[in-house]
Amino acid sequence: MIKRIGILGLGVVGEAVVKTLLRYKHLIKKRTSLKIEVRKVCDIKKEKKKLVSRWNIPFTTDPYEVIEDSTIDIVVELIGGINPARKYLLSALKKGKDIVTANKALLAQCGEEIFSTAAMLNRNIGFEASVCGAIPIIKSISEGLVSCQINKLYGILNGTTNYILYKMHKDKVKFKDALKEAQKKGFAERLPQLDLEGIDALHKLCILTYLSFGRWPLIGDIYVEGISQITPLDIVYAEELSYRIKLLAIAKKENKKLSLRVHPTLVRRDHPLCEVNYAFNAVWLDTYPAGQLLFYGEGAGGVPTSSAVVADIVGVSLGRCLPQIKKEDVQFEDINNLKTRYYIRFMACDKPGVLAKISKILASFKISIASVTQKERSRGQFVPIVMLTHEAREIDLKRALKKIDKLEIIYPPSQLIRIEDL
Amino acid sequence: MIKRIGILGLGVVGEAVVKTLLRYKHLIKKRTSLKIEVRKVCDIKKEKKKLVSRWNIPFTTDPYEVIEDSTIDIVVELIGGINPARKYLLSALKKGKDIVTANKALLAQCGEEIFSTAAMLNRNIGFEASVCGAIPIIKSISEGLVSCQINKLYGILNGTTNYILYKMHKDKVKFKDALKEAQKKGFAERLPQLDLEGIDALHKLCILTYLSFGRWPLIGDIYVEGISQITPLDIVYAEELSYRIKLLAIAKKENKKLSLRVHPTLVRRDHPLCEVNYAFNAVWLDTYPAGQLLFYGEGAGGVPTSSAVVADIVGVSLGRCLPQIKKEDVQFEDINNLKTRYYIRFMACDKPGVLAKISKILASFKISIASVTQKERSRGQFVPIVMLTHEAREIDLKRALKKIDKLEIIYPPSQLIRIEDL
Repeated sequence: MIKRIGILGLGVVGEAVVKTLLRYKHLIKKRTSLKIEVRKVCDIKKEKKKLVSRWNIPFTTDPYEVIEDSTIDIVVELIGGINPARKYLLSALKKGKDIVTANKALLAQCGEEIFSTAAMLNRNIGFEASVCGAIPIIKSISEGLVSCQINKLYGILNGTTNYILYKMHKDKVKFKDALKEAQKKGFAERLPQLDLEGIDALHKLCILTYLSFGRWPLIGDIYVEGISQITPLDIVYAEELSYRIKLLAIAKKENKKLSLRVHPTLVRRDHPLCEVNYAFNAVWLDTYPAGQLLFYGEGAGGVPTSSAVVADIVGVSLGRCLPQIKKEDVQFEDINNLKTRYYIRFMACDKPGVLAKISKILASFKISIASVTQKERSRGQFVPIVMLTHEAREIDLKRALKKIDKLEIIYPPSQLIRIEDL
Repeated sequence: MIKRIGILGLGVVGEAVVKTLLRYKHLIKKRTSLKIEVRKVCDIKKEKKKLVSRWNIPFTTDPYEVIEDSTIDIVVELIGGINPARKYLLSALKKGKDIVTANKALLAQCGEEIFSTAAMLNRNIGFEASVCGAIPIIKSISEGLVSCQINKLYGILNGTTNYILYKMHKDKVKFKDALKEAQKKGFAERLPQLDLEGIDALHKLCILTYLSFGRWPLIGDIYVEGISQITPLDIVYAEELSYRIKLLAIAKKENKKLSLRVHPTLVRRDHPLCEVNYAFNAVWLDTYPAGQLLFYGEGAGGVPTSSAVVADIVGVSLGRCLPQIKKEDVQFEDINNLKTRYYIRFMACDKPGVLAKISKILASFKISIASVTQKERSRGQFVPIVMLTHEAREIDLKRALKKIDKLEIIYPPSQLIRIEDL
């Protein structure tokens, strides 16, 4: 069987996809009897023509020359961003093409529209590359775990932030310095805000939520917090308390309510997620009947991501159906109702009675303390006091911290990091 | 769409499969629009009828009542063992049924026959549950990594042995005691020889080799070594040297030669495979372009395995094709030609000149020593001497050890454990 594809966008991923298709066509043929022909490549940058002509593939700067080409079966969108990618994909579907996309931002925002359009037109969508690069997590959840109820999902879904936290932990450097190194090594973009603030992880969490729980959440409804407030002090204290700090994307279903959030999290040091170092990604699932699973691999980069895009091209070519999941009746939990354990750190004057004042306020909000660490005074005027709480309500914690931060003896803002007992 | 299945074998897995199908039929429907009906269940034990009638499913003790039932689309074989399972599966294929099986021993021995029969008859096979229980590793390799060249595959494919090694490491107990505990906890069978000697892992390695490298190896050609010779002493020394001992199934392709083997292996302690504890399974892959990946989860037990069986039933129902991989031209490497680093331990008389004698023999076989650990004499007459070698040839190592074991000052047999630098 032969299938003809057109590619929109020849950036890092696009170029890697063409190269993988050319380099491993014998493997694909051997494993599936499928021949994939790249019929046309489109990029708005004219100078890309040179590259494409080296492969003997026709080039265009007009996306509609791909979308409207009647010889093309599958349109592969590797442009990124909401517009014009959305418009192109919807047009391609309407022209009877199947589509493959790596566009997490688009699916997170417009997933419902794109999936329902595809379903209506009986078209197929591949989107493996939109979450965790090379890890076949979309396939694993939607096909491998098709009969599983997913109770909890914890993802390290963003390589940049994982690299920074890893470096801060390993080399005891500040956030800023770790970021600089990540940028130097190509693990962080020049404008890394989407990564650092957790937005990229949030986009991927939306897609995994659809697959796992049958609902496209509204991005604005999900609590998201980045890593820029994490200090080397917190990393060291967490380590001493046998935890490590990871930026986790979390989806937990309890009592028909779904708690979705992205934030720095203390994870027990002996949990496999703590061994996810450098810019690697991972997804930890707690399911029934399949039990606990971990998927780990490279979450970004053109070369690894090309594996997922090509797998999708092959899957769509072979007519493997997209998961058209029927809407589930799920309610989302407000972050203020979250009940969990917390790591809190105060910078306090080294005076008698400080601990008493803090403890009193916490107690007045029914927050019970599990452990306190206060070391001998260092040179500065303010010393860190670190507490782990027992399970408490988020709203109580926030109110207590607000009150504590108004004390004269406290140098605000105090730190609050959620703990997950995986 | 509705699909009708018949189940052969109502053991631990069979029972869990029916329960999962019944309990999660709404999930399957929601995610795939598929309805699966269990048309008939067969077990040679008459007393199972009681169980089955509780579910309102017809029961038979005659497998041909399932195989020849024209209303059944898919035959699910959960009997295990070579015969009569092989006969039943081939008959089912010939009767036009698709098949699903969890039978690793059968596929390892007769995979080529079963797959070619299915291809000839244009039938589909699901076999996800045959390797690593609930982990969707078959799907991930054959579909998710369809465009990837797999360079190295390392698997912890047997839960029993992993549990025993984990317990020996954690509680510093002897092999025998760890085995007893595993049996008590249900992680080891009463006759655990297939597990302990590495045969179960070997069967799974055969299947993964077919998927990854396009060849069914002959079981007899693969080097296999179990864990019964591992002592607490080795575990402690390995730990001190920053390694941990794991029973690994290994497939490595180098220079067109494929090295396949199952044996206890020293793995660097900071490698994610070392965090695979208890009876968990995992597969570590080194690929291009997808890079390095780890898949981790429950490798055995009726409940987790039912997830994989049901996923296969769904996949086959939806017409997802089996990987019919064209034979690759691959040559297998003989274990004697293996080049790797080694951990060797001698029990030697605590006399002057001992180290010199051992070193001399090693040198005569061109085996270069990277490190030596000999501690102060304990009470016994023999003291352990532990060495890590640089890269050396297996055949040289074996010859050297044979010679060393003949020395009067040595209490044989000396220990040899291969090291893998993952």
